[in-house]
This record gives sequence, C-alpha cells and structure tokens, in this order.
Amino acid sequence: MQVNGTPYRCIWPEADRRSVAIIDQTKLPHCFASVSLRTLDDAVLAIRDMLVRGAPLIGATAAYGVCLGLNEDCSDARLEAVCTALIAARPTAVNLRWAVERMRSLLSNLPLEERLEKAYTEAAAICDEDVRVNEALGEHGLELIREKYAEKGDTVNILTHCNAGWLATVDWGTALAPIFKAHAAGIPVHVWVDETRPRNQGAHLTAWELASAGIDHHLIVDNSGGHLMQQGQVDLCIVGTDRTTCTGDVCNKIGTYLKALAAADNGVPFYVALPSSTIDWTLEDGAKIPIEERDQEEVLLVSGLAEDGKVQQVRIAPEQTKAANPAFDVTPARLVTGLITERGVCTAKKEALLALFPEQNKKQGAEL
Amino acid sequence: MQVNGTPYRCIWPEADRRSVAIIDQTKLPHCFASVSLRTLDDAVLAIRDMLVRGAPLIGATAAYGVCLGLNEDCSDARLEAVCTALIAARPTAVNLRWAVERMRSLLSNLPLEERLEKAYTEAAAICDEDVRVNEALGEHGLELIREKYAEKGDTVNILTHCNAGWLATVDWGTALAPIFKAHAAGIPVHVWVDETRPRNQGAHLTAWELASAGIDHHLIVDNSGGHLMQQGQVDLCIVGTDRTTCTGDVCNKIGTYLKALAAADNGVPFYVALPSSTIDWTLEDGAKIPIEERDQEEVLLVSGLAEDGKVQQVRIAPEQTKAANPAFDVTPARLVTGLITERGVCTAKKEALLALFPEQNKKQGAEL
Repeated sequence: MQVNGTPYRCIWPEADRRSVAIIDQTKLPHCFASVSLRTLDDAVLAIRDMLVRGAPLIGATAAYGVCLGLNEDCSDARLEAVCTALIAARPTAVNLRWAVERMRSLLSNLPLEERLEKAYTEAAAICDEDVRVNEALGEHGLELIREKYAEKGDTVNILTHCNAGWLATVDWGTALAPIFKAHAAGIPVHVWVDETRPRNQGAHLTAWELASAGIDHHLIVDNSGGHLMQQGQVDLCIVGTDRTTCTGDVCNKIGTYLKALAAADNGVPFYVALPSSTIDWTLEDGAKIPIEERDQEEVLLVSGLAEDGKVQQVRIAPEQTKAANPAFDVTPARLVTGLITERGVCTAKKEALLALFPEQNKKQGAEL
Repeated sequence: MQVNGTPYRCIWPEADRRSVAIIDQTKLPHCFASVSLRTLDDAVLAIRDMLVRGAPLIGATAAYGVCLGLNEDCSDARLEAVCTALIAARPTAVNLRWAVERMRSLLSNLPLEERLEKAYTEAAAICDEDVRVNEALGEHGLELIREKYAEKGDTVNILTHCNAGWLATVDWGTALAPIFKAHAAGIPVHVWVDETRPRNQGAHLTAWELASAGIDHHLIVDNSGGHLMQQGQVDLCIVGTDRTTCTGDVCNKIGTYLKALAAADNGVPFYVALPSSTIDWTLEDGAKIPIEERDQEEVLLVSGLAEDGKVQQVRIAPEQTKAANPAFDVTPARLVTGLITERGVCTAKKEALLALFPEQNKKQGAEL
C-alpha cells in the first residue's frame, strides 16, 4: 500500500541481507516509522510486544526471525532453539507456527552451508505468497460488496473489528482487502471501525489505513456495533481471524464473538476473511484454542497523543483495581455467514472448506 | 455510602437552603471532590456534562434544579422555563422528566409564596424515596445472589456494565445495591467490571465504588464479557437502566445489548435492576426511545491519570478520523431474565410489571 505516495510492505529485507525492516505499529497512528530487526531477540520482541501483529504478518516476521536467528550459526541445535523461541512469542495465531514449521522442515534437510541463503529466499517467498493470497481473497470479498451495492444502490456500510488491514499482513490485508478493492472499483463504501480495546488497533491502525486511503469511515466504541445493526446501519461485517478451525470456528480479537451475536440477531451477514494459512486443519473445536492472557496494564493504561504533541499513557482506573485481559475469543461457526479465502467464499463448515482445499483431505487422511 | 469512613449521598442540600452540593463524578476515580450548584444553569450543566449521571441521580438533581431555578423567581412563567430547560438537558433517562413533572405538578398548584420552600422539601423527599427504593431493590436482588451462592457453594461472579452503583443514584445504587448487600451479608462475590467506553464509567466509577467498599473485582474491556461467559466465568449479569418500557425493553448504556445477547447465548441469567421511576408506562416499544448521540470527542479523547499525577486527555485516533457516539442501546425484553424492582423481581413482561405495580393499571386505564 502507499503511504504519502510511497509504496510499502509491512516487512522487507534490508540491503545487507542480514536484517529486515518493519513498520513499528506501536507508534501508529501518530508516527509512521520503520525499525530494523537484526537478531532473533529483535524478532521475538517485535512479535511479543506487538510492533508487528496480525496473524499473517506474525507468520512472515517469524519466517524472517528464523533467518536472523541463523545469521551466526546454522547448526541443527541453533535451528531448533530459534524455532522454539519464535513459536513461544505468541500462543494464539496459527500462522506463527505454520511459518516456523515451514522454515524448519525446509532448512533441516539442507547442508549447513546452504541454510542461511535458502532461509532468506524462503522468507521472501512466504511474504510474496501472503501478498498474492490476500489480493486474491480481496477479489472474492469484493464480489460480496458488489452484490450488496447492486441490491442496495447506495453506500455499503461495513463494520470491522480490530485491524485486519494491510498492517496485519505483508500487504493488502484480509478483512480490509475487499474494502480497498471496492473503493478502487468506485463502489461507495463506509466503514464502522471498532476501536478494539484494549490495544485500540481499530483506532490506531484501521482508522489510519482508511484515512490514508481516503475511505469514508467512523470510529466507534466496541459497545456501539449492536445498536448500529439494530438501526439497520450495518450492511455487512467483515473481520479477520488469528486461527480458524477446520470446522469454521473463528478465533479472533476479543469482542468479535459479541459482534457475530449481534449480526445473527439482526440478520446482518458476518464474514471472516482469511488466508488458508490461518486454518488449523488439526483442530475441530474452537473451544480448544489457547487464549492468550496479556498484561493487565494494557487495560489499565491507554496510550494516545497528549496536548503537548507527545504520545502518553494515562491510567483509567483507581490504583487498587486489577484487570483481566484475555486477548481473543472464539466465534462459533454457526454465527459465521461465510469464510472469504484466496480460493473463494465458502460456508463455515468442514465440507465446504475441504471442497475449496481438497489437498487437505488427502493430508488429513494420510495423517490418520 | 462511606468514603474514607464518612457517609455520603451523591447530592445534598447546603445549609443556606438555596444551593445543593454534588460529588463531581467527572473527577473520579483520581479525585473525590464535591461542587456547589447555585443556579438553574449550574444544574443543567451538571446534568449535561455528566458531573452527575445515572437515571435516578439525574432525576434527583433535576428536582433540585427546579428549586435552584426558582430561587429568585417563582412565577408560572419561570417554572415553565425552568422545567423546559431541565428536561432538555439529556433526552434518554425517563427519571429526568418524571422528577421535573412531579415538581411542576406540585408547585404549579401552590401560591407563589409557598413554592420555594415546598420545592426544597419535595426535592428532599424525592431523594429520600430514591434511597429507600434502591435499598429495597437491593434486598430483592440479594436473594438472587444468595440463591446462586447456595447452588454453587463458591464465589458468585457477577458482570456489570457502566455504573449503576450508588454514584448513579442518591445512595445504594441499582445494579450494585444487591452486590453491596451480598458483601455485607458475607456472601463471597467477585465483580467483572465492564470499563464502558466511551466515558469509562465502569473503570472510573464502578471500580472506584467496589474498591472503596473492599469488594473483589476485575476491570475488563467491553469486548471481554462474551468470552468470560463462554468460559463459565460469569454466574449472573446485573445492569441498570435509563428507561424501561412497560413491556420490559431496557434502554441502558451503549453495549448492554451485546452483553444480553452473550448471556442468552450462554444461559447466564441477565437481570436489570431499576427503581420503578425508570419505567416509562406510556411506551410499549423500546425502539421508540430517543437515543442520545453525544459529542465525538468522547470517543476520540480518553481521560486518565498521566505519569506526572495530573489528569490528562489523550487522542487515540488519527486527526482525520471522525467518530460516531450513540450513548445508549435497547435490549429487547426477550433477552432479559428478570427485572429487580423495589417491590420484588419479575419477568420482563407487561403483565408481570403491572402485577407488581397494579396502580399503573388504573392510571393507564384512566388515560385511555
């Protein structure tokens, strides 16, 4: 995507081929800045502290994290240690494990002297694939928006939760990809942006992406979506996902489940956009996905731009009050109208997913 | 309730009997301070700018607002102007209109020279009634908590939204009254406190009330309640209401509807605690309640304690982003397990409400 006329991805290799640059998303929307990752620790911290976030981008960063971890030492022992450290950085997103396993299985079969070069090539391939996949799912999602516009003949109002824009991926995004495509195709769209407490990725990132792209939007608190649906002000919901079971249960940012309930109660279609790397083909039951419990300070402190133009944190609760901070929830497949994948849109059912990804049928069979 | 060992109400007449004092709730939780209201404008601004909030307390403040408005002039014209100004201060809470109408109908029938004294006496009576009513509904709600404790034999986990504690009333509160009672009765309770964006009344007020009373609680973002219910970590929901139709539709702080949906989806009882002054006996359909749209700055700016110990506001979104800010939503009666009133608990149905308040049956009949 373009930022002030310059095309960017969210992660890119630097010229020395021993480091990568990322956009530091903790500084948005008030400051757009990139930062270099040079070591395994840099990559782990970037993932853990959410300088990068979004399941696909976490995967891409982890792939480059393997490269950085092998810069000085390509031994089997080092490869194992690197993969273990990266997988432990965040527990919920399945792409993290997917990307690391892909790197490990490729590299462990290579002679030591070939590993480093091949690692950087493979990480770049993972990034390029992510871009292709997201653009493809954007095209499929665009058709849903186009249909709604044809039916309504007026601006299509889309509600989204958290950030599943290009900042959550290498480029294009997942839930926002169809919206970028629709805007480019001249379809009038308006986006209700859930601020997405506690980390406000909607307010910080989604609003910033939409403003940068000139797409009409309003920020709303996470409490508002149900009321807007009751009032007929939401035509479609589109969200991303951090992990999707093969049965269509969707683990996404905390609060997604509440919006899916409201959508079902008001007959609003609720779509989830996902690259297939987000599907956990080994899991049937969303309730079994480990839900990350993050630091209570994320709830107790809110970050923003103070009057003096500096980014500050303010404490919103009394000193004695503690907070609980589960980061994700699971939306059962019954509440999901459809899954938007790079191969097309399908219902949130195992048969439908396997019909789009028949190679998984064979794989699952082989593993039995 | 006690604050640092001193008993307080949220509003009280000052010794000169020409002014009233309130707790300035915009300063909590970081500063506990009272402020004097001396004029009609003071009262209107206190309501509009939410120095006082909560349907019952808005009603009590409006009653005293009538007194303040008559301090210098008790004429019919002045009484009309005063009532009109107060009713316009906030559109959603029915208690505001209820209290003002009660004052108007009493005072308009009195000779001018008796009006002012009688106004102060009547406002005091409204406050005393509010305290009695809330304590009574607290006793009825206590029985629900007691039953759950008897069934579970372990800490009762209660989720609440916004602030319906003593700060929302003259004293005792509505949704929190049963919790204060249960704590006093030695029943172990733990409260999940929705922070309640955009104004964070949960984080600022409910958490402060519970911390002051020594009641175990955790602050959560508004997104978390559905997940906690899925995980079996919520035994009961109890919320307040700004207006309840005679058919049991509940208009309350934005986001209440989402929690009611989650409660229904997970079999968690969802109770609404209300003094009967909150019931709009003239309204059958909650969708007809006017929903206040408040200033977008409430969403875009978050207030809290900065590192330097001063209260600051920080901007959470990019400059170009606008916000929408509906302040309330309507939870349909079908999602409400029961209404906790000063006369007992009933289902959210017209017949059940009229069985508790049979005098309304006659009134409604008389008006037809």
